[in-house]
Amino acid sequence: MKEISKLLDYRPEIRVLDATLRDGGLVNNFFFTDEFVRDLYRANIKAGVDYMEFGYKASTEMFKESEFGKWKFCKDEDIRAIVGDNDSDLKISVMADVGRCDYKNDIVNRSDSPIDMIRIATYIHQIPAAVDMIEDANRKGYETTCNIMAISTSGEQDWRAALEIIARSSVDAIYIVDSYGSLYPEQIARICNLYMEIGAKYGKEIGIHAHNNQQLAFANTIEAVGDGVNYLDATYGCLGRGAGNCAMELLLGFLKNPKYNLYPALQFIEKHITKLKADGLLWGYDVPYMLTGILNQHPRTAISYMGENRTDYTEFFHILTGRD
Amino acid sequence: MKEISKLLDYRPEIRVLDATLRDGGLVNNFFFTDEFVRDLYRANIKAGVDYMEFGYKASTEMFKESEFGKWKFCKDEDIRAIVGDNDSDLKISVMADVGRCDYKNDIVNRSDSPIDMIRIATYIHQIPAAVDMIEDANRKGYETTCNIMAISTSGEQDWRAALEIIARSSVDAIYIVDSYGSLYPEQIARICNLYMEIGAKYGKEIGIHAHNNQQLAFANTIEAVGDGVNYLDATYGCLGRGAGNCAMELLLGFLKNPKYNLYPALQFIEKHITKLKADGLLWGYDVPYMLTGILNQHPRTAISYMGENRTDYTEFFHILTGRD
Repeated sequence: MKEISKLLDYRPEIRVLDATLRDGGLVNNFFFTDEFVRDLYRANIKAGVDYMEFGYKASTEMFKESEFGKWKFCKDEDIRAIVGDNDSDLKISVMADVGRCDYKNDIVNRSDSPIDMIRIATYIHQIPAAVDMIEDANRKGYETTCNIMAISTSGEQDWRAALEIIARSSVDAIYIVDSYGSLYPEQIARICNLYMEIGAKYGKEIGIHAHNNQQLAFANTIEAVGDGVNYLDATYGCLGRGAGNCAMELLLGFLKNPKYNLYPALQFIEKHITKLKADGLLWGYDVPYMLTGILNQHPRTAISYMGENRTDYTEFFHILTGRD
Repeated sequence: MKEISKLLDYRPEIRVLDATLRDGGLVNNFFFTDEFVRDLYRANIKAGVDYMEFGYKASTEMFKESEFGKWKFCKDEDIRAIVGDNDSDLKISVMADVGRCDYKNDIVNRSDSPIDMIRIATYIHQIPAAVDMIEDANRKGYETTCNIMAISTSGEQDWRAALEIIARSSVDAIYIVDSYGSLYPEQIARICNLYMEIGAKYGKEIGIHAHNNQQLAFANTIEAVGDGVNYLDATYGCLGRGAGNCAMELLLGFLKNPKYNLYPALQFIEKHITKLKADGLLWGYDVPYMLTGILNQHPRTAISYMGENRTDYTEFFHILTGRD
């Protein structure tokens, strides 16, 4: 059981990362208004959030710029238009997917960029390519994290092997990513143990990025906090793909470090998140996402089903599990 | 850390109680259609649920029958109209509040009633009255539980004293009740330890009834399962006061005993819960409930605020915390 003295105190090493634009961008193809992004930036500063992720650094060869909002690509000039010289304690991050980012050309030296951290997202079968991206970003002066996605589809032997390769790189933090929202806190505790063990061996921080398919994104995040995980992803109003993520407002309400403030989060949600909901943007816990979570499947079938405004959940259950 | 062998196996002692009518009745003043109640009864049987709580046994002296649906009062003949002789493994429970139930007159002998279990709900300052109700119900042949409400407003010394009194009664199970949805899994673990210690001493089962103000109702329930708690409350679609309860569908998806089935729950939700939502009944996680949860307050202010369709969360924060 966790020590009560630790529950009432705080670890100054904890870092909160706002992934609203990046994971939320998967819901609206990154079409956020500049006002939304500017207010989010200000809210994060006032709330004491440590990192704000603006979106992806996606290859313009692979993705048409006309089909997405600008935060799919996160050009330095677009970030600068929001943050200027970013005269604040808030650091800027972007995500770069293995195989979907022209990192050698599109990521310039940190000294010439408003970006502070590159987060490399990888599946477990792409680790060497991820390491190449980590080393490229590290050479250019960036902080880096490596986010191994969809770990619920592989097992402990694979995780260990992958972690050993990644941890030997120059990466600063390695993320536990529950892409399908299928993991229970009891499993998160075991996974944290493994990541923390290898992180300690190589001097790496550990992070967590959770999804809310089973209403466990916040619970899994604070389970990880109790297990020693320091990098925590959250999004305002849970905004994120499918069932969404750990709610920033819940996390700020939980953390004890006085640098974190809930009130600016309420201001932002009141002005912007309620509007997205009212405008019909679809995200957040619902039965179809629960089913893909329980069945450890990618949420894409549930997202497509929800987009049709259907509520014939038993039929969706058959779609997911087959009738043969 | 919990044993992995226990996580993949199950305890046959676990009992699932459907509190949809009772806690959901607090949302719609118990005005459920007979079709809703009949389908719920059938869904519970098919899903393998162990107990179905029909509502409250409220005093008709204190509450006008014209102002509530019949499940506020749970007359035996109304239950019989749904369940007949209840030729099933599903047991029937009702809740009796200390100070709001004319139990000596309104609760007849179990042999003359369709009810199997009386759940006595009490605040911590009413324990002797609760014990009187427990003994009355026990003498009449019922299973009994004692649900100590709003424990987050008192401390461990009080809990211990209350538990020692209750555990010496003839009660069968004692419930941990997080009425305000303010408790984190780490606190639930500690509370379970205390309840389990005293439960073991007197041979009593322990139960949990959670609220979802911080999206933790399911997480807290499965935390308690891992800690040895056997009586688990849930409601379909989280239907319950304010932020609602632990979702039955999540719980059935989690439990490993093959007697539990998710599919009938999906059928019921598809037919009935989606309709209540579409008709505008208000329940389930939202920012105002989160705030009363974080602040460890009764949800009534949030319920009233939500009823006005307001989203000025910062103003609500001031209402809760004061401006002086």
